[in-house]
Amino acid sequence: MRIAILAGGVGGAKFADGMMRALPDPAALTVVVNVGDDFEHFGLKICPDLDTVCYTLAGLENPTTGWGRREETWHVMDAVAALGGPTWFRLGDKDLATHLERTRRLRAGEPLSQIVASFCRAWGVPARVLPVTDDPVPTIVLTDEGALPFQTYFVHRRWQPKVLGFRFEGASRARPAPGVLEALQGADAVFFAPSNPFVSIDPILAIPGVRASLRGKPVIAVSPIVGGKALKGPAAKMFRELGYTPSAQAVAEHYQGLITHFVLDKADASQAKGLRSKVPHVWVMDTIMASPEARQRFAQKLLGRLLQAS
Amino acid sequence: MRIAILAGGVGGAKFADGMMRALPDPAALTVVVNVGDDFEHFGLKICPDLDTVCYTLAGLENPTTGWGRREETWHVMDAVAALGGPTWFRLGDKDLATHLERTRRLRAGEPLSQIVASFCRAWGVPARVLPVTDDPVPTIVLTDEGALPFQTYFVHRRWQPKVLGFRFEGASRARPAPGVLEALQGADAVFFAPSNPFVSIDPILAIPGVRASLRGKPVIAVSPIVGGKALKGPAAKMFRELGYTPSAQAVAEHYQGLITHFVLDKADASQAKGLRSKVPHVWVMDTIMASPEARQRFAQKLLGRLLQAS
Repeated sequence: MRIAILAGGVGGAKFADGMMRALPDPAALTVVVNVGDDFEHFGLKICPDLDTVCYTLAGLENPTTGWGRREETWHVMDAVAALGGPTWFRLGDKDLATHLERTRRLRAGEPLSQIVASFCRAWGVPARVLPVTDDPVPTIVLTDEGALPFQTYFVHRRWQPKVLGFRFEGASRARPAPGVLEALQGADAVFFAPSNPFVSIDPILAIPGVRASLRGKPVIAVSPIVGGKALKGPAAKMFRELGYTPSAQAVAEHYQGLITHFVLDKADASQAKGLRSKVPHVWVMDTIMASPEARQRFAQKLLGRLLQAS
Repeated sequence: MRIAILAGGVGGAKFADGMMRALPDPAALTVVVNVGDDFEHFGLKICPDLDTVCYTLAGLENPTTGWGRREETWHVMDAVAALGGPTWFRLGDKDLATHLERTRRLRAGEPLSQIVASFCRAWGVPARVLPVTDDPVPTIVLTDEGALPFQTYFVHRRWQPKVLGFRFEGASRARPAPGVLEALQGADAVFFAPSNPFVSIDPILAIPGVRASLRGKPVIAVSPIVGGKALKGPAAKMFRELGYTPSAQAVAEHYQGLITHFVLDKADASQAKGLRSKVPHVWVMDTIMASPEARQRFAQKLLGRLLQAS
């Protein structure tokens, strides 16, 4: 069974990790990752979602924060602080090596997808990780304080400005990275990880060809909203600011027409019935991935239900 | 007494440090530093000579290597190596912070000289350090293996290719950094540190206005060649490859017409007599700066002789 996942950062990484552990052959998994949160900082190209996914699948992730690397040190940032430089985006020493080497190779003309593949080989990631595109497609968050680059909104301003909308700059002209459409078309099922619909999944869906590649197969979205709250980050706040009540239902409606299956947490079981007219299959499950084992169990149950249904 | 020094990396930094310690007011010292060895690596702007001078005057230098910072760690480089990235140019963790923050500020439009001034304040450097120009003027080493960027020749190829000549790219169009000409014109004496004449001092002299600013005052060159050998680096090898016998005399002849005083080590005392027809004042002194105290003593003696002569 070939599986593809559309994923953002921490939530997407955990979900992908569970799926990789659950699949008999981890190489049967392709994770297509958002690059709308990529940015330049200190002259370096930084790809937070991509790195979080790769670190997590390599077992190198920081288990406390979910982002960055485990057993990290902060000697560079401390010395940057001593020079009065910006420290709002925390770059650990080991993590910095990723940004340095990626920037070096990009400047030498290597495409991002090839660099990610090479890093994954070096780190021993058994699944395939693909940036959705090699082209820069920066997410701009339109807020009551103006249009903000994503990381300025997300990390620097701690997602406090009120959201009015989003712009995926250059998305319509971007080309999917080599292998992305083939992986989606060749997959037996495609999952939308429980990532932020607006700034993790939508920027992936905005790349030409991605939506069309989802047709004719199970497309299963997992709700990132449980009990009216986001598992992590600003998803619930964004729904509210855009005029929706944050709920699993709101997520399902956001993806309506594109997904064949919707998975919501048992805490939201009461919303399932009303959704059955909007999404062909609605599954109520225990979606909380509190541990690596819980991630794997969740993925195993999802795969089990998929096989049952087919 | 206002003193200016033209300086390259390690030798220039030690000489400047001695002078700073010897002067009653360290703020009376301006060090004008070579930027021909600046380069881009991993997308970062790296200024090895400038950093060596600043670290040394701040007491932050690595006393073993002469370059880089003391109490350094190498976590980033180790992680770069794990990705198969280049490690020929060793970047310590603390040192990297300098390159990150400099690159960030350059990209924000700040001129290099202003960034260096800000770093020197943060590090507590009491003397004034000026890059000779804010414009990029990369030194290209013409060798039997082709034209090599300076750090490729110097660090990556460990100065093994045979030198045929040098090119200071863009020098004729470069503007001296704010304060450089004023510092040279306002100085009571200008020293050429015992740095490499070809790749440390000449690239400074190549910036328009610098040579003219030396007129009408004591200009004292200290020989970087002692006993036919370079104190450090490829100076002797370069003289030989360019067709000269490496010696203090060859250095004096290289600077002839520009300098009023030449200082050679007592090991080369026998060459002094022959030089008196070429340089107005020839001083035989103990020029070896084996310790910070020796640097200071040497600078004190130089200042003493200057005052005696005036």
